[in-house]
Amino acid sequence: MIKVTIIGSGNVGFHLVNLFHNSTKINLNEWCSRSIDFDERVKVINKIENLSESDIYVICVSDKSITEVSDKIQFKNKLVVHTSGSTPYNSLNNKNRRGVFYPLQTFSKSQKLNYSEIPICIEAENNKDLETLKKLSQDLNCKHYETNFEERKTLHLAAIISNNFTNFLFGISKEIIDSKNLDFNILKPLINETVNKIHKLDPIKAQTGPARRNDVNIMKMHENMLKNEEIKSLYMVISKMIKEKYGN
Amino acid sequence: MIKVTIIGSGNVGFHLVNLFHNSTKINLNEWCSRSIDFDERVKVINKIENLSESDIYVICVSDKSITEVSDKIQFKNKLVVHTSGSTPYNSLNNKNRRGVFYPLQTFSKSQKLNYSEIPICIEAENNKDLETLKKLSQDLNCKHYETNFEERKTLHLAAIISNNFTNFLFGISKEIIDSKNLDFNILKPLINETVNKIHKLDPIKAQTGPARRNDVNIMKMHENMLKNEEIKSLYMVISKMIKEKYGN
Repeated sequence: MIKVTIIGSGNVGFHLVNLFHNSTKINLNEWCSRSIDFDERVKVINKIENLSESDIYVICVSDKSITEVSDKIQFKNKLVVHTSGSTPYNSLNNKNRRGVFYPLQTFSKSQKLNYSEIPICIEAENNKDLETLKKLSQDLNCKHYETNFEERKTLHLAAIISNNFTNFLFGISKEIIDSKNLDFNILKPLINETVNKIHKLDPIKAQTGPARRNDVNIMKMHENMLKNEEIKSLYMVISKMIKEKYGN
Repeated sequence: MIKVTIIGSGNVGFHLVNLFHNSTKINLNEWCSRSIDFDERVKVINKIENLSESDIYVICVSDKSITEVSDKIQFKNKLVVHTSGSTPYNSLNNKNRRGVFYPLQTFSKSQKLNYSEIPICIEAENNKDLETLKKLSQDLNCKHYETNFEERKTLHLAAIISNNFTNFLFGISKEIIDSKNLDFNILKPLINETVNKIHKLDPIKAQTGPARRNDVNIMKMHENMLKNEEIKSLYMVISKMIKEKYGN
């Protein structure tokens, strides 16, 4: 069995420990965390200097700490991967064989996930390690995609737009609804359906709404309703982009 | 049984015919459509002048045609409702009793819906008709919400933002992914999870991403990757709003 060490206990590290622990085909050897002292499923160490030997070290730390953490791994010629969408593998110290294991998903510690639905973007310096990362993904029941740095960066950017930005719009909607003492739950079936649609229709073809059909009266009414100048301006910018895209 | 006539065969009319037809507790008497000649489930007429008598007339036409259509109904003292989120009930001709039956959902003819998950915003000039609209919603197995015009407009605005605008962002993401010959399917589990989260976490609290944590390097990299000036500008505007909201 592949022996794996997870380094880091932020949102990604936290969920990868769950993911790796759930697999009967992987030996989750160790979890290195500065903030956690005990976990019943896996041996925990607090200091990276105390790492024991594993086949793969999975670094789950902020982008800017990846190099430093990889420098501190005292082993050589091991497979060391990071989990970042926006960092090249050569940010890792080259005393080890380097790769990337980027789970394209949004992680919150309080939110349970269907782990079989996490796409893993993998990359490795050499083919043998790429095969190992493929095997690792399969042992985790995850779909994997071989992606180079350019491709990974592109996916990460698209992920920001379709996850972070849409969540921000959900937040704006909630505030608008809260401001009139209405119930945000009324909107949830619509939000569900917005996403159901993308599984069947190309979102570009599925576009609807006042801007799509250039309904000037409705747009004007909405602009007048929005008292927050930044949100009003955002409403106008996106409406303009939709209008232009669809030739209105 | 309540006898209902649907007027209009756009996306809303099309789906309301399905919805009303599926209920065993409602008599779907007639469908008035200029463009459809025959439907095996319901009598179809092409001219509004030929309407037969029903208890309720549900007008599913564009906002700007609601008044004209309501004028043409030759009956008096019937319950006539429209299905618009942004139109007051007094746009309807007052020879009939007036109300609103606004299904807060996104409708595409090609997309099947879970009809039990459509919230219906109802409003009526008099209490007896309001009770009738409540009963109608229940007979359709739909949740109903009593909302006045101000509330309905607010919900409609929030719906535009969380449906039309997020779909537009999904479209931008898809174009970014297509431009590098990557597969949009890679992003779908993330998009699913973005929506799963709102059922458990307040979207305002669930916000993550480079702008939330003010990761200037990533944001700069993304701006450089975006060659379309409008999309780049949108990226910057939303990132700025997120940064400001979370005090960065």
